[in-house]
Amino acid sequence: MPESPAAPPLFKRLALIGIGLIGSSVARIAMERRHIAAEVVANARTQATLDRVLELGIADHVELDPAKAVAGADCVMLCAPVGAYAALAEAIAPHLAPGAIVTDVGSTKQSVIRDVGPLIPAGVHFVPAHPVAGTEYSGPDSGFTTLFQGRWCLLTPPPGTDPAAIEKISELWRRCGSMVESMEPAHHDRVLAIVSHLPHLLAFTICNTAEGLEDESRQEVLKFAASGFRDFTRIAASDPVMWRDIFLNNREALLEMLARFMEDAQAMARAVRWGDPSFIEDSIQRGRVIRRNLIEIKQA
Amino acid sequence: MPESPAAPPLFKRLALIGIGLIGSSVARIAMERRHIAAEVVANARTQATLDRVLELGIADHVELDPAKAVAGADCVMLCAPVGAYAALAEAIAPHLAPGAIVTDVGSTKQSVIRDVGPLIPAGVHFVPAHPVAGTEYSGPDSGFTTLFQGRWCLLTPPPGTDPAAIEKISELWRRCGSMVESMEPAHHDRVLAIVSHLPHLLAFTICNTAEGLEDESRQEVLKFAASGFRDFTRIAASDPVMWRDIFLNNREALLEMLARFMEDAQAMARAVRWGDPSFIEDSIQRGRVIRRNLIEIKQA
Repeated sequence: MPESPAAPPLFKRLALIGIGLIGSSVARIAMERRHIAAEVVANARTQATLDRVLELGIADHVELDPAKAVAGADCVMLCAPVGAYAALAEAIAPHLAPGAIVTDVGSTKQSVIRDVGPLIPAGVHFVPAHPVAGTEYSGPDSGFTTLFQGRWCLLTPPPGTDPAAIEKISELWRRCGSMVESMEPAHHDRVLAIVSHLPHLLAFTICNTAEGLEDESRQEVLKFAASGFRDFTRIAASDPVMWRDIFLNNREALLEMLARFMEDAQAMARAVRWGDPSFIEDSIQRGRVIRRNLIEIKQA
Repeated sequence: MPESPAAPPLFKRLALIGIGLIGSSVARIAMERRHIAAEVVANARTQATLDRVLELGIADHVELDPAKAVAGADCVMLCAPVGAYAALAEAIAPHLAPGAIVTDVGSTKQSVIRDVGPLIPAGVHFVPAHPVAGTEYSGPDSGFTTLFQGRWCLLTPPPGTDPAAIEKISELWRRCGSMVESMEPAHHDRVLAIVSHLPHLLAFTICNTAEGLEDESRQEVLKFAASGFRDFTRIAASDPVMWRDIFLNNREALLEMLARFMEDAQAMARAVRWGDPSFIEDSIQRGRVIRRNLIEIKQA
């Protein structure tokens, strides 16, 4: 990372509301380098999680009440499933310090602006963000300091957001190792629907389909899981509540991409049924273009 | 591997008809340890491939004419896309040595028995096999000696097949590092439809759907490909002709599994549209059972 270890911390007090994979990765980075915040406070829904956070040593303080967690914080980062944002915003709004920045890490951005935006008090800044990074693991034990390295963080600030607040959140993510870019929220939701939300929905669904087979076949699915299926089950191991909330909060874009996908899958089914080799081969070839381009731009 | 390096070769002359990922992996194992065949002959559709095989040193001889490649071979292994089997079997049948064993590595077994079985001359044995292993790479450069290690190889011998021939092919795969099991061909095709063929069809299709987006979104799919989509593109990089042939030759089982999957995907779409959080969460949870079981039986 470019900045020297002596860089002064960006914030005095960072409050992490939720401390799962993303929150605990930010916490680990902030605690290790002390260049993001002088003090890190963690909030979670259960005392058991907070006890674990203290055992892991990944926050200076823990606080079960989100209202108390944000007191005196100049940066508040929502790291909970997006379906919990509205209630959390309501709980913390009266306790936010003047001049504080509220940000988040949710995978759906129009819903966050809809649910959180109206509750942000005057004099507090709101900079929605989405670090496009993750693994199939969840909880405070799952985070690690290199999670965001070389990955994008997409900011979707509403029109009129204070440029200085945007710059501070951009710098926070750069200090986590990310590349930062701003994007229009509706466009963000559409792009993420195809690159992330739809693939997860398909992976969950095929596991469900396999689980629904009669006993004998199901046992053999487990025994002979070839690479294709195994890769899908890895994706499908991701946190159910987080993904449930993402699906429900990116409904329109997700349903549109799923409808396109279903049309394409039906066309493939038809070609298989009626024995159209060139249609099938062309479809496969066309999809491979994406892979080749991915490799070319070194995202693969 | 259990057997000593001094184990005598199982066969005098192994003819590999096709020398892609699977064929060239078998060739490398056979050439390195000399415990599978005293002599390895490779056949391919083009002289360029055969020249490359000689450069790589993964066969003793190369032969552009499959009829000549099988002459004098006591083991003939079809390693071409399954759609090419009927023509290949026709070409080699009159030249097979008495007592030889014909086997294959195709991912669809009912079609192989249908296409190859009737052409096998009296006195020649036929032991269809499917090593359940692979990567997304293809061609003679892509093979490696550890591809089959710890992976299953499924044999689907027709009723009445000589037990000694089955045992020799079983031993061949054990010497490649595989675990060997026999299975009824229709059952094989059904299990593989869900663990391998359907996942590949879905991966090809989602890449195709992404490729069909308007220009701007397509560029951003490439730029922000999150882990979900990237995993799918990896699967979708597999050989188009091989997969086209698999889809067409496991039509019934693949269409049935795809139909079940589409029903499950439609149910998810409906729950997203109408906002049914518990249905979505339950579906995700049910699919995760498969993953947990996979981890438990150490296939993950």
